[in-house]
Order: sequence, then C-alpha cells, then structure tokens
Amino acid sequence: MRLVRFRFGDEIATGVLEDGVIRQLRGTFFEDPVPSGSEVALEHARLLAPVIPSKVVAIARNYPEHAAEMGNVVPDVPMLFFKPATSVIGPGDPIPIPEGPSRVDPEAELAVVIGRLCRRVSEEDALKYVLGYTCANDVTVRDWQKSDGQWARAKGSDGFCPLGPWIETEVDPSDLEVRSRVNGEVLQSGRTSSLVFPPARLIAHIAASITLLPGDVVLTGTPPGVGPMRPGDRVEIEIEGIGVLANTVASAGG
Amino acid sequence: MRLVRFRFGDEIATGVLEDGVIRQLRGTFFEDPVPSGSEVALEHARLLAPVIPSKVVAIARNYPEHAAEMGNVVPDVPMLFFKPATSVIGPGDPIPIPEGPSRVDPEAELAVVIGRLCRRVSEEDALKYVLGYTCANDVTVRDWQKSDGQWARAKGSDGFCPLGPWIETEVDPSDLEVRSRVNGEVLQSGRTSSLVFPPARLIAHIAASITLLPGDVVLTGTPPGVGPMRPGDRVEIEIEGIGVLANTVASAGG
Repeated sequence: MRLVRFRFGDEIATGVLEDGVIRQLRGTFFEDPVPSGSEVALEHARLLAPVIPSKVVAIARNYPEHAAEMGNVVPDVPMLFFKPATSVIGPGDPIPIPEGPSRVDPEAELAVVIGRLCRRVSEEDALKYVLGYTCANDVTVRDWQKSDGQWARAKGSDGFCPLGPWIETEVDPSDLEVRSRVNGEVLQSGRTSSLVFPPARLIAHIAASITLLPGDVVLTGTPPGVGPMRPGDRVEIEIEGIGVLANTVASAGG
Repeated sequence: MRLVRFRFGDEIATGVLEDGVIRQLRGTFFEDPVPSGSEVALEHARLLAPVIPSKVVAIARNYPEHAAEMGNVVPDVPMLFFKPATSVIGPGDPIPIPEGPSRVDPEAELAVVIGRLCRRVSEEDALKYVLGYTCANDVTVRDWQKSDGQWARAKGSDGFCPLGPWIETEVDPSDLEVRSRVNGEVLQSGRTSSLVFPPARLIAHIAASITLLPGDVVLTGTPPGVGPMRPGDRVEIEIEGIGVLANTVASAGG
C-alpha cells in the first residue's frame, strides 16, 4: 500500500495511492485509517513529505564502501545524528543551498517510518513498530561537516531532508537497490543487503535510550559514490520497490 | 515576568508566577496571552518544563575554561548539536540513567527560549526573537560522547534535557552566574560574560541556515567544573536572575 500526504486545492489530506488515484483517508496514518469516500487523481494532487516527523534519527557509515570512500572505518555501534523537523521537505520542493559552502552532496537513503511509540524493543520485535518505508535525501554540506565536527548545521539545515514520494507499507527492506542520480546520471548505488546494521538493529539500538514517536523517521545510511550537486540540478533518489524522490537544487542563498 | 507551564489536578495550563501565586493564562505564551481569571497557589501546582520545543539547538565549547578542561580548543564558529523533544523533562522529574555507561554528567546551561519564527536575522536583531530565559541541564553520557563521535545518543537520550523551572522574560543574559550543584555541593561555576559566542550571536548563526520556531530552545554551553552524577543524587542548576532547576537522578535503567 502506498500512503501519501497531499495538497489538493487549499486542503492537505492523507490517502492511499493506487493506479494513479488517491483514495482520501480521514485522519492520520497512525490510527486505523478510514476512507473518507473522496478520490483525487494523482495528476491533480501535489504530493507532500509523507510525514512531518518530530525527529529524524540518521545513521552514518552504515555501508562499508561509503565509509571507506570517506576515509572512515565502520563503527562498532551505530553512529547516530539528528535532523530536525525543519529540515524536512517534500517531493518536488526545491533544495535550498546556503551561500558560502563550496560542496553540497545528496545522499540517497532508505527511510524507515515509525508507526507507533517505540521504546526498548528487541531487534526481533523492532519491525512491528514500522509503518513503512520511503526515500530520503540526507543533504550534506561537506565543508561544514568537516569544519564543525558535530553535523547539526551540515546535515540539519532547512530543506536538508527531502522525504517521499510515499510510504510503501509492503516492501521487505532487506535487499533493495538504493541509488542517487544527478541530472539523470547515476551517482551513488548500493543494496541494503550490505548495511552494517539493518533497520531492525538500528531501531532496537536507538529505542534503547531514545523513544521513537509515530511519524519519526530513521535514515539508514548512504551507499558509495557520493558527489556534489549544484544549483539547477535535478536530484533523484530511487529505491527498488518504493519509487523515485525527485527535487531540484535551488539557486545559492535562495 | 515568570512564565510557567503547570499541572493542577488533571489540567495542564500556562500562567504567570508572582509571589507564590500563578495567574492562569488562556492559550500559549506565543500569542498575546490573556489572563483566564483563575489563580492557583504555587504549592498546589506541579511545574512542568516551561516549553516543549520542536528542537533544542545546543552549543559545545562555548566557555573557554570548559573547552580547556575537556582538552579542546575554542571553535572559530559555534559548534552546534541537536537534542530532540523526547529528551525534555521538567523540574522535579527523575533523570533516567541508561544501564551500561560508567559516567553521566550534568551540564548547567543558560537556555534561550525563542518567541517567534526566526530565520536569517542579524546579531543586532536576534534578541527581539527571544521570549525569555530558563535553566537547562545538558545531561551527557561521557562514555558515549567519546565512543560514538556524533553526540545524538550521548546528549539526546530520553530525559537528557531538564528545563525550568520557568521562563524569566526580563533578565539581561549578558553577565549571569551559572552553576551546577550535586547534593548541595557546587560542581560547575561560570559567568555568561565569558561566553565565546553570546546568545545574540548564536541565534544569528543558527538562524542563518536553520529556522527556529516559537518554543525552540538554544542551549548556550556549559561552564567549567564538570563531574559525574549518580543514581539518587539531587542535581541543581542555578542561574542568577532566573532560579533553580532541581532534579533527582533515577536508578540505572529505571
């Protein structure tokens, strides 16, 4: 099932997308959703970030080949950082580039959307707390990542977390191809089967000390091949079994 | 003016505290607050964290003597990290200590509460976006801070951001004494006049790329003297002109 948040005229609503038609829901995805009876053609709706998370918990160095290309080793325990709600944008929204930095990269990531409050869960039970999966772009200012040490500004600035286009509830996350493309050309590529810490392990690790709320998002790390994006570039994150998240890079300081 | 959030019976409300009496307000602090006409004696109310921020943006190494005691140099630009909403607790709430780590420290910090949406502001204008100031405890697991590299778990775990007891709207933040005490004994001590980056500079730096929302909180860094706290300890953060935030450390894994 593909769960969407969308704008139609002045209204923002949730729905289920199938064969180009959105069946609108009453309320959120987190209770038992009830169809409202209304339908909207996808071409007349504007898709939004499928959730507004209270927080995004992201993971660094979770694909060995990406850790290696950055000159890092794979950590013993998952390396966590936060991206705030103010960094989240939706499909088609422009990615703002701050003035000053010389290099800003997209990072393609499988995003896990939490469905219910999750605290101290075993790895075995962890996926029961998942609503579904979507595509994420962990936008990163390389200059700031290096100079700041902590990555709040490098990875948490406004618009640095495109999410979408929908939440796919029926995909198995264990072996999916994850890619980024800039202007149609493949930049990064990897499979989630090479994740050092798979989603269930990440959720159990995070929820051991940090409560995950419904709608919170876990980013699972980025595959190798990172490179820059520039104003005007079209950036796509494609994940097998989910879909394509596409955004254009805004002009610097815009 | 001292702005409080409090529980009274089953109700959670906002109010203005004066001479031991809370005059209740309608709505939040962020619109023009209207007195509801009700009053509650402070002794019959339970004070809560004065705000639930969408995010806490915290600053590392902002007192030169604390940077030095940790073996660090003062950074050229403010070093930012995030603490999520799930880390916020109120005055008197127990601070949970995860099982495993050997050292957990309190860190006394002046907390700035943002009053209105703040994006790309000059240092000169920055304080116009401030609602007021409160006390914060930037609880830190030293083991994880060192081993994880990024500080999300070390500083962002549940209960790791006690805030309170109220928002003081009329204090000048430029030269206040900031202290932590464990079981009555002074641990840390410093004055905000020694901040490398004062509040206005921090807000301008953050809001250059990260939008601050009403209720968001900026922690301004911790003075020298850090040391551990242990289950059962009573920890107090006292800031001149604001008040005392007191919490007790819960038993490990509790």
